[in-house]
Amino acid sequence: MTVVLTQPLTAGAFAPFGDVLEAAGDPTMQINQDMCERFHDRAKLDFGNGRAGISIFRSKTRSLPYQLDMVERHPMGSQAFIPMSQHPFLIIVASDKAGVPTNPLAFISDKGQAINLHKGTWHGVLTPLNKPGVFAVIDRIGEGNNLEEYYFDTPYQIEIG
Amino acid sequence: MTVVLTQPLTAGAFAPFGDVLEAAGDPTMQINQDMCERFHDRAKLDFGNGRAGISIFRSKTRSLPYQLDMVERHPMGSQAFIPMSQHPFLIIVASDKAGVPTNPLAFISDKGQAINLHKGTWHGVLTPLNKPGVFAVIDRIGEGNNLEEYYFDTPYQIEIG
Repeated sequence: MTVVLTQPLTAGAFAPFGDVLEAAGDPTMQINQDMCERFHDRAKLDFGNGRAGISIFRSKTRSLPYQLDMVERHPMGSQAFIPMSQHPFLIIVASDKAGVPTNPLAFISDKGQAINLHKGTWHGVLTPLNKPGVFAVIDRIGEGNNLEEYYFDTPYQIEIG
Repeated sequence: MTVVLTQPLTAGAFAPFGDVLEAAGDPTMQINQDMCERFHDRAKLDFGNGRAGISIFRSKTRSLPYQLDMVERHPMGSQAFIPMSQHPFLIIVASDKAGVPTNPLAFISDKGQAINLHKGTWHGVLTPLNKPGVFAVIDRIGEGNNLEEYYFDTPYQIEIG
């Protein structure tokens, strides 16, 4: 079983897969009479022929080491996960090689970080590490099969890096 | 100065102004091999001739009693506020009477609640009550003047109800 070590979630390392959404660096603008910083339009959203929707996910928690049996992807749209608590969560993504997920990577977010997965990115299911495991999810609402799943012949083991 | 007492944020009381987004009631479906509940597509989004964007807001905190000098509205799109912490926040909305905001109401969210303001709804600026005051905001990205502000002749005082 191949071991994958977690790494901190940074915008640079995550860039091939999606966007890190956080109040980091210089804000784009000050609003509300300088009471509020706006970090503007930070996600590459793509809902194809569908539309944007906001859903709430409440997931059971997981722990490390974590056995990765499968990944999935949404070929028709991007998918953002916004934690509604200040807890880190585990994010697993993988590259695509001719339709097969390869070289999975595991990130652990810092509190205050959300992510947006670009359209068609292979990823593990939602894996919060702490209760309550509640996230707002911005993804595509529309007709068509927007889910592909891939089960690995041999699971990966995700361990703290 | 007119006093407005805060009330708990409930979907019913908030319905004329927007949606309450939370993991409440029965989930729409179970996903991820029954590890996750999905409360599906809970916001009435409308971005007009623009598109959806995700921005991060980091606001200074406020406290009660709070003096309400002004409200604003976005005539071209809805605006959702998702707290990235488990803190309640203050939400002020007002009805519209021929282009003038009237009868302001004040809600205090419970932890785990987010909101989506329907297009054109008069509302107060973002008023978190606790640090860090970080929210993900899903609103319209596009050209045109999407901000109207209204300053009251006499401020309102928002007090704990």
